[in-house]
Amino acid sequence: MRSLGHQIVAEFYGCDKALLNDVAYIRNHMLEATIVTETFHHFSPHGVSGAVIIAESHLAIHTWPEYGYAAVDLFTCGDSVSAEIGFNHLREALGAGHVSTMEVHRGQIDMMSMGDQGQPAMKLVTSQTG
Amino acid sequence: MRSLGHQIVAEFYGCDKALLNDVAYIRNHMLEATIVTETFHHFSPHGVSGAVIIAESHLAIHTWPEYGYAAVDLFTCGDSVSAEIGFNHLREALGAGHVSTMEVHRGQIDMMSMGDQGQPAMKLVTSQTG
Repeated sequence: MRSLGHQIVAEFYGCDKALLNDVAYIRNHMLEATIVTETFHHFSPHGVSGAVIIAESHLAIHTWPEYGYAAVDLFTCGDSVSAEIGFNHLREALGAGHVSTMEVHRGQIDMMSMGDQGQPAMKLVTSQTG
Repeated sequence: MRSLGHQIVAEFYGCDKALLNDVAYIRNHMLEATIVTETFHHFSPHGVSGAVIIAESHLAIHTWPEYGYAAVDLFTCGDSVSAEIGFNHLREALGAGHVSTMEVHRGQIDMMSMGDQGQPAMKLVTSQTG
Protein backbone atom coordinates (compact mmCIF):
# COMPACT_ATOMS: atom_id res chain seq x y z
CA MET A 1 0.00 0.00 0.00
CA ARG A 2 1.47 3.29 -1.09
CA SER A 3 0.56 6.25 1.05
CA LEU A 4 1.79 9.79 1.49
CA GLY A 5 1.98 9.69 5.25
CA HIS A 6 2.42 7.22 8.05
CA GLN A 7 1.06 7.90 11.50
CA ILE A 8 1.66 6.24 14.82
CA VAL A 9 -0.94 6.86 17.51
CA ALA A 10 0.52 5.81 20.84
CA GLU A 11 -0.70 5.47 24.39
CA PHE A 12 2.03 5.80 27.02
CA TYR A 13 0.82 4.40 30.34
CA GLY A 14 2.56 4.18 33.67
CA CYS A 15 4.85 7.12 33.03
CA ASP A 16 6.71 9.07 35.69
CA LYS A 17 4.08 11.51 36.92
CA ALA A 18 6.50 14.29 37.83
CA LEU A 19 8.13 14.16 34.41
CA LEU A 20 4.73 14.33 32.70
CA ASN A 21 4.25 17.71 34.35
CA ASP A 22 7.69 19.08 33.46
CA VAL A 23 7.36 21.10 30.26
CA ALA A 24 11.08 21.88 30.03
CA TYR A 25 11.99 18.22 30.37
CA ILE A 26 9.46 17.09 27.75
CA ARG A 27 10.38 19.89 25.40
CA ASN A 28 14.09 19.09 25.64
CA HIS A 29 13.52 15.44 24.90
CA MET A 30 11.23 16.18 21.95
CA LEU A 31 13.82 18.56 20.51
CA GLU A 32 16.51 15.91 20.27
CA ALA A 33 15.53 15.38 16.65
CA THR A 34 16.12 18.03 14.02
CA ILE A 35 13.35 20.53 14.58
CA VAL A 36 11.91 23.04 12.17
CA THR A 37 9.44 24.70 14.49
CA GLU A 38 7.94 23.90 17.88
CA THR A 39 5.27 24.96 20.35
CA PHE A 40 4.83 23.94 23.98
CA HIS A 41 2.53 24.85 26.81
CA HIS A 42 2.26 23.99 30.49
CA PHE A 43 -1.18 23.98 32.03
CA SER A 44 -2.15 24.90 35.55
CA PRO A 45 -2.30 22.99 37.81
CA HIS A 46 -0.76 20.20 35.75
CA GLY A 47 -0.32 18.82 32.28
CA VAL A 48 1.78 19.59 29.22
CA SER A 49 0.78 19.98 25.59
CA GLY A 50 3.30 20.36 22.81
CA ALA A 51 4.01 19.81 19.16
CA VAL A 52 7.08 19.89 16.97
CA ILE A 53 7.14 20.08 13.19
CA ILE A 54 10.06 18.09 11.84
CA ALA A 55 10.39 18.58 8.08
CA GLU A 56 7.10 17.15 6.79
CA SER A 57 6.47 15.25 10.00
CA HIS A 58 5.10 16.10 13.42
CA LEU A 59 5.32 14.82 16.95
CA ALA A 60 2.65 15.90 19.43
CA ILE A 61 2.04 15.16 23.10
CA HIS A 62 -0.64 15.73 25.72
CA THR A 63 0.03 14.56 29.26
CA TRP A 64 -2.17 13.74 32.25
CA PRO A 65 0.27 13.49 35.17
CA GLU A 66 -2.49 12.42 37.55
CA TYR A 67 -2.97 9.26 35.47
CA GLY A 68 0.66 8.72 34.52
CA TYR A 69 -0.63 8.84 30.95
CA ALA A 70 0.53 10.62 27.81
CA ALA A 71 -1.11 10.67 24.38
CA VAL A 72 1.63 10.78 21.76
CA ASP A 73 1.17 11.16 18.01
CA LEU A 74 3.85 10.74 15.41
CA PHE A 75 3.16 11.64 11.79
CA THR A 76 5.91 10.95 9.26
CA CYS A 77 6.26 11.20 5.50
CA GLY A 78 8.53 9.25 3.25
CA ASP A 79 11.98 8.67 4.57
CA SER A 80 11.83 10.88 7.62
CA VAL A 81 13.35 8.93 10.45
CA SER A 82 14.26 11.73 12.84
CA ALA A 83 10.67 11.87 14.08
CA GLU A 84 10.73 8.18 14.93
CA ILE A 85 13.97 8.66 16.76
CA GLY A 86 12.31 11.42 18.75
CA PHE A 87 9.33 9.17 19.45
CA ASN A 88 11.44 6.34 20.81
CA HIS A 89 13.56 8.74 22.79
CA LEU A 90 10.48 10.28 24.38
CA ARG A 91 9.19 6.91 25.43
CA GLU A 92 12.40 6.19 27.26
CA ALA A 93 12.58 9.67 28.74
CA LEU A 94 9.11 9.47 30.26
CA GLY A 95 9.70 6.03 31.71
CA ALA A 96 6.56 4.59 30.14
CA GLY A 97 5.78 1.26 31.73
CA HIS A 98 3.35 0.21 29.02
CA VAL A 99 2.94 1.44 25.47
CA SER A 100 0.34 0.53 22.89
CA THR A 101 0.42 1.84 19.36
CA MET A 102 -1.80 2.00 16.29
CA GLU A 103 -0.59 2.74 12.78
CA VAL A 104 -2.55 4.66 10.20
CA HIS A 105 -1.61 5.01 6.54
CA ARG A 106 -2.56 8.49 5.38
CA GLY A 107 -3.27 9.78 1.89
CA GLN A 108 -3.34 6.55 -0.06
CA ILE A 109 -1.98 7.20 -3.51
CA ASP A 110 -3.67 4.21 -5.12
CA MET A 111 -7.07 5.37 -3.95
CA MET A 112 -6.47 8.89 -5.21
CA SER A 113 -5.35 7.77 -8.64
CA MET A 114 -8.41 5.56 -8.95
CA GLY A 115 -10.70 8.36 -7.86
CA ASP A 116 -11.84 6.10 -5.04
CA GLN A 117 -11.34 8.06 -1.88
CA GLY A 118 -12.18 5.91 1.08
CA GLN A 119 -11.54 5.95 4.76
CA PRO A 120 -8.03 6.07 6.11
CA ALA A 121 -6.65 2.54 6.02
CA MET A 122 -5.54 1.30 9.36
CA LYS A 123 -3.18 -1.29 10.59
CA LEU A 124 -3.26 -2.28 14.21
CA VAL A 125 0.10 -2.99 15.69
CA THR A 126 0.04 -5.08 18.83
CA SER A 127 3.29 -3.72 20.15
CA GLN A 128 2.36 -3.63 23.78
CA THR A 129 5.27 -3.68 26.16
CA GLY A 130 4.93 -4.22 29.87
CA MET B 1 -16.67 4.65 27.13
CA ARG B 2 -14.92 7.27 29.22
CA SER B 3 -11.68 8.54 27.79
CA LEU B 4 -9.37 11.45 28.42
CA GLY B 5 -9.04 12.50 24.82
CA HIS B 6 -10.95 12.30 21.58
CA GLN B 7 -9.16 12.39 18.26
CA ILE B 8 -10.42 12.87 14.74
CA VAL B 9 -8.11 11.70 11.98
CA ALA B 10 -9.33 13.21 8.72
CA GLU B 11 -8.46 12.92 5.06
CA PHE B 12 -9.31 16.00 3.00
CA TYR B 13 -9.37 15.12 -0.69
CA GLY B 14 -10.07 17.27 -3.72
CA CYS B 15 -8.97 20.49 -2.06
CA ASP B 16 -8.02 23.68 -3.86
CA LYS B 17 -4.39 23.06 -4.81
CA ALA B 18 -3.30 26.68 -4.62
CA LEU B 19 -4.75 27.10 -1.15
CA LEU B 20 -2.98 23.95 0.05
CA ASN B 21 0.30 25.68 -0.74
CA ASP B 22 -0.57 28.99 0.93
CA VAL B 23 0.85 28.93 4.45
CA ALA B 24 -0.57 32.34 5.39
CA TYR B 25 -4.06 31.31 4.29
CA ILE B 26 -3.95 28.01 6.16
CA ARG B 27 -2.46 29.61 9.25
CA ASN B 28 -5.12 32.33 9.31
CA HIS B 29 -7.92 29.82 9.03
CA MET B 30 -6.46 27.57 11.72
CA LEU B 31 -6.10 30.55 14.05
CA GLU B 32 -9.80 31.39 14.00
CA ALA B 33 -10.17 29.38 17.17
CA THR B 34 -8.68 30.56 20.44
CA ILE B 35 -5.03 29.69 20.17
CA VAL B 36 -2.50 29.16 22.90
CA THR B 37 0.55 28.55 20.75
CA GLU B 38 1.16 27.72 17.10
CA THR B 39 3.83 26.70 14.64
CA PHE B 40 3.72 26.70 10.83
CA HIS B 41 6.14 25.98 8.03
CA HIS B 42 6.05 26.23 4.26
CA PHE B 43 8.15 23.80 2.29
CA SER B 44 9.88 24.35 -1.01
CA PRO B 45 8.71 23.84 -3.66
CA HIS B 46 5.28 23.16 -2.17
CA GLY B 47 3.44 21.95 0.89
CA VAL B 48 2.53 23.30 4.29
CA SER B 49 2.89 21.77 7.74
CA GLY B 50 1.46 23.35 10.84
CA ALA B 51 0.11 22.74 14.31
CA VAL B 52 -1.79 24.78 16.84
CA ILE B 53 -2.18 23.98 20.52
CA ILE B 54 -5.63 25.05 21.71
CA ALA B 55 -5.90 24.65 25.47
CA GLU B 56 -5.47 20.88 25.92
CA SER B 57 -6.24 20.19 22.27
CA HIS B 58 -4.32 20.35 19.03
CA LEU B 59 -5.03 20.75 15.35
CA ALA B 60 -2.33 19.71 12.88
CA ILE B 61 -2.12 19.75 9.10
CA HIS B 62 0.19 18.48 6.36
CA THR B 63 -0.67 19.32 2.76
CA TRP B 64 0.27 17.86 -0.62
CA PRO B 65 -0.89 20.47 -3.14
CA GLU B 66 0.04 18.23 -6.07
CA TYR B 67 -2.57 15.72 -4.92
CA GLY B 68 -5.14 18.21 -3.66
CA TYR B 69 -4.80 16.32 -0.39
CA ALA B 70 -4.41 17.39 3.23
CA ALA B 71 -3.93 15.20 6.30
CA VAL B 72 -5.68 16.87 9.23
CA ASP B 73 -5.62 15.75 12.85
CA LEU B 74 -7.80 17.10 15.61
CA PHE B 75 -7.17 16.09 19.21
CA THR B 76 -9.59 17.37 21.84
CA CYS B 77 -10.09 16.88 25.55
CA GLY B 78 -13.27 17.22 27.53
CA ASP B 79 -15.45 20.08 26.59
CA SER B 80 -13.11 21.83 24.20
CA VAL B 81 -15.17 22.83 21.20
CA SER B 82 -13.01 25.59 19.74
CA ALA B 83 -10.77 22.99 18.11
CA GLU B 84 -13.75 21.38 16.37
CA ILE B 85 -14.88 24.77 15.17
CA GLY B 86 -11.42 25.29 13.73
CA PHE B 87 -11.54 21.86 12.10
CA ASN B 88 -14.84 22.50 10.37
CA HIS B 89 -13.76 25.96 9.37
CA LEU B 90 -10.58 24.59 7.81
CA ARG B 91 -12.52 22.07 5.79
CA GLU B 92 -14.63 24.83 4.28
CA ALA B 93 -11.65 27.10 3.76
CA LEU B 94 -9.71 24.50 1.79
CA GLY B 95 -12.68 23.63 -0.38
CA ALA B 96 -12.36 19.91 0.32
CA GLY B 97 -14.49 17.98 -2.14
CA HIS B 98 -14.39 14.76 -0.13
CA VAL B 99 -13.63 14.16 3.53
CA SER B 100 -13.30 10.91 5.41
CA THR B 101 -12.75 10.76 9.14
CA MET B 102 -11.81 8.24 11.81
CA GLU B 103 -12.34 8.73 15.51
CA VAL B 104 -10.02 7.44 18.21
CA HIS B 105 -10.75 7.50 21.92
CA ARG B 106 -7.52 8.17 23.77
CA GLY B 107 -6.55 7.36 27.35
CA GLN B 108 -9.45 5.19 28.40
CA ILE B 109 -10.14 5.79 32.05
CA ASP B 110 -11.89 2.47 32.63
CA MET B 111 -8.90 0.55 31.35
CA MET B 112 -6.52 2.51 33.52
CA SER B 113 -8.53 2.02 36.67
CA MET B 114 -8.70 -1.73 36.04
CA GLY B 115 -5.00 -1.94 35.37
CA ASP B 116 -5.86 -3.31 31.94
CA GLN B 117 -4.08 -1.11 29.47
CA GLY B 118 -4.95 -2.18 25.98
CA GLN B 119 -4.75 -0.73 22.55
CA PRO B 120 -6.38 2.57 21.76
CA ALA B 121 -10.06 1.88 21.15
CA MET B 122 -11.24 3.05 17.78
CA LYS B 123 -14.52 3.99 16.30
CA LEU B 124 -14.79 4.29 12.57
CA VAL B 125 -17.00 7.09 11.42
CA THR B 126 -18.27 6.75 7.89
CA SER B 127 -18.78 10.44 7.42
CA GLN B 128 -17.71 10.68 3.83
CA THR B 129 -19.03 13.64 1.95
CA GLY B 130 -18.76 14.05 -1.78
